[in-house]
Amino acid sequence: MPEAKKEAAANADAKKELIKLGYSVIDDIKKGKNPHIELSVRGLSNVVYDKQSKTLALGDKTAQRFFFNVAHSKKFLQTIEIASITKALLDVNKHASLRDVFYMAKRTIPNTKINVVDEQTESDKAIEDLELITGYSRENLNVNANKMGSVAGKVVVEDSGDTIDWSKLGSGGWSIPSNVENIKFKKVDAKYVIYMEKAAVWERLHEDKFWEKQNCIIMSSQGQTTRGIRRLLQRLSSEHKLPIYVLADNDPWGWYIYSVLKFGSISLAHMADEMAIPQVKFLGITCDDVINYDLKRHFIKLTDKDISRLKQMQNYEWFVKHKEWQRQFKMMKDFGAKVEIQALSSKGISFISERYLPEKIKKQELLD
Amino acid sequence: MPEAKKEAAANADAKKELIKLGYSVIDDIKKGKNPHIELSVRGLSNVVYDKQSKTLALGDKTAQRFFFNVAHSKKFLQTIEIASITKALLDVNKHASLRDVFYMAKRTIPNTKINVVDEQTESDKAIEDLELITGYSRENLNVNANKMGSVAGKVVVEDSGDTIDWSKLGSGGWSIPSNVENIKFKKVDAKYVIYMEKAAVWERLHEDKFWEKQNCIIMSSQGQTTRGIRRLLQRLSSEHKLPIYVLADNDPWGWYIYSVLKFGSISLAHMADEMAIPQVKFLGITCDDVINYDLKRHFIKLTDKDISRLKQMQNYEWFVKHKEWQRQFKMMKDFGAKVEIQALSSKGISFISERYLPEKIKKQELLD
Repeated sequence: MPEAKKEAAANADAKKELIKLGYSVIDDIKKGKNPHIELSVRGLSNVVYDKQSKTLALGDKTAQRFFFNVAHSKKFLQTIEIASITKALLDVNKHASLRDVFYMAKRTIPNTKINVVDEQTESDKAIEDLELITGYSRENLNVNANKMGSVAGKVVVEDSGDTIDWSKLGSGGWSIPSNVENIKFKKVDAKYVIYMEKAAVWERLHEDKFWEKQNCIIMSSQGQTTRGIRRLLQRLSSEHKLPIYVLADNDPWGWYIYSVLKFGSISLAHMADEMAIPQVKFLGITCDDVINYDLKRHFIKLTDKDISRLKQMQNYEWFVKHKEWQRQFKMMKDFGAKVEIQALSSKGISFISERYLPEKIKKQELLD
Repeated sequence: MPEAKKEAAANADAKKELIKLGYSVIDDIKKGKNPHIELSVRGLSNVVYDKQSKTLALGDKTAQRFFFNVAHSKKFLQTIEIASITKALLDVNKHASLRDVFYMAKRTIPNTKINVVDEQTESDKAIEDLELITGYSRENLNVNANKMGSVAGKVVVEDSGDTIDWSKLGSGGWSIPSNVENIKFKKVDAKYVIYMEKAAVWERLHEDKFWEKQNCIIMSSQGQTTRGIRRLLQRLSSEHKLPIYVLADNDPWGWYIYSVLKFGSISLAHMADEMAIPQVKFLGITCDDVINYDLKRHFIKLTDKDISRLKQMQNYEWFVKHKEWQRQFKMMKDFGAKVEIQALSSKGISFISERYLPEKIKKQELLD
C-alpha cells in the first residue's frame, strides 16, 4: 500500500484493534472467564538491542492482566477506560493531548471514593499499553505529544485540507504539528534533511536560504526532539529515502540527541519501528571539527553530569564496537571540554552556512 | 508615518544612532576629553511604575561610563565592541542570536590575556546598553531572541518576500519568528486575539477551527512568552487595535504571564514602550470559573513557591488597588489550590472551544 494511504488507514485500523480488545473482554465475560488483557512486558528487563533493525526493541516477554486480581484490577480498568476514550476521539476525529486524556479519565467511580486515575502517569501508562495492544502509536489513537519546532525547504504538503509550501513561509517557516500522521507529501524536492537541536541555528540557515542553495530541508526544535519531529524525520527517511543529518553541539547531550534518534530509547522501545531512524548520520560538531575549525579557544569545561553521560554512551551496545565514536568519546574526554555550535559564529555570522556545512557535506564527513 | 513604514525604517534609524554613538566617542577623543557614554541606570533602583502608561518604566537616573576609569573601562569597551558587531549585522542585513553575538565578541585583546567578553551575560548587558543608547530594541539591531510559538487566523502577512496566509497552514500553523519587526500585515480580519500559554490548548482550538468560527487569532508559545510573540501581540494591539486576551492556567504562574505581558517586568523596563501591552485582558481561568464550571474536583494543592509568587503579586503596585484581582488572589489563597486549563477537558474534549470560551467572551467576563 502506498505510504500516504497507509497513514490515512492507520486511524481506522487502530480503531478496529480497540474494538477487538473490547470484544475479547466481552468474550471472556460471556464464557464466564476472568476478563484479561495480554501485553508485552515493558521496562528494562524486556528491552533488547535488535541487531537486525539496529534499534532498541521489546523482547518476547508477555504478561496477562486480569480483572479479578487485586493487583491488576485498577490497571485493567484504566486500560479499558483509556481505550474507550481514545475510541471516542477516533469516532469524532478529534485529537487530545496526554494531559487532556488524563482529565477525561479522571472521575470518581460511583458509590466509591476511588478515582479511575489520580496521576497522569497512570493514563500515560495505559496509553502505552494500548500502543502495544493495538500495534499503533498513540498518534494513530489521536493522542498528541508536545508541539514544537519549525521546518523549511522545497516541500509541499497537504494537511487538514490546506496545501502548504514549506518554501514560502517567510522567516518563520511551518510550525510542526504534534501529530504528523495524516500529512500527505505532494512534492519533495530535496537531497537531504538537516535536523538541528537549536532554533537559533535554524534561523541562521533559513535567513541564508541554505535550504534553497543546497537543495535540502532544514528542521529544528527548541530543546527536546518531540514525537512530531521524530515521525516527520522518519517519514522523510522511509517514504522519500532522504538522508537525515543531525547537527548539534559538541557535547554529550548533543550526541545523545543523535543516539536517541538513531537507536531509540528505553521509553520508546515498544515503538521503535515508528520512532527510531537507523539511517540518521551525525554531521557535527565532532571533536575533529573542533580541531579543524580552530574552535578550541571556545572550550567549555565538562561538568560531572557531562562526564557521566559520556561514560554511559561509551558503553551502549551500539557504540561499544564503533571505532569512530569511541575515538570521539575519547577525544572529548581528553579535551575535558565541549564546544557549542554557535562558536562557529566567531568565524563570521554565516561561516556555518557558507563554509562549515557545505564542506562537511561535500566531503561526506559524517559519523554513522 | 504608517506603522509598516516605521518598522522598515527602524533598522536604518537604529544604525544612525549607532553611528552617532561612534562619532560622539571620536568627538571626545578629538577634544582631548575622556571618552564617555551616557545612559540610563537600569535595575530596581531606577524602575518605576508609570501610572500614565500603566507599565513598568525606567526613571530619570542616568550614569556616565568613561574609557579612562578602571571600573568602567571594560564595560565601555564591550559596549563599543557590540555596537560595532550590531552595525556590521545591519550593514549586511543579517540577524544573530544573543549567543552568536557573544561568540562574535569573544576574542582576546592582542598582546594581552584579556578577553573582550568571558560570559554571555556581559554581551547581553552591552546589548541592553545599546537599546537604551539608541532607543531601539535589540530586534531593530538585528539581534534575535528565542524562536517559539504558533499562530493561526484570518491574517495575511508579507515577510522576507513571501506572502503568508495564517488561515491556510494546516494543523501546524505559522511558526512565529524570533524577530517580527519587518513583517507587514496585508490583511487582518479578526475581532480579537487569544494568547495562550499552552501549545496543546492551541492545537485543540485550531482543530476545532475556533479562529474561523469566532473570527479571531489564536497564538501560543510553549512555556515562555518570547519577545517575538510579545512584539507580535503588541503590533496587533497598537496597529490593528485588536483586544488581546490571555488564556492561562488558574495558578500564580499563569497569572504572572498575564502580569508581565500587561505591565512589563524589571528586565524589560527599559523597553516597556515596545514590550508591555497595557490593553491586554485576562480571560481565564479565574477562580470564579473554577466555581462556575465546576472544576474544584481537579484542584491541585498550591506549593510553597506558588504561595510566595501569589503574595508577591498581591503587593504589586498595579494589583494592590485592583479590587477584582485582590479578590482573585484571596480566593486562590482560600482554595489553597490551583486548577489547570486542561481540566476543562473533563467536560468533553471540545468544551473549551464550544462552551467555555464563547460564553466568557460573549459575556465579556474579563479581568483588566
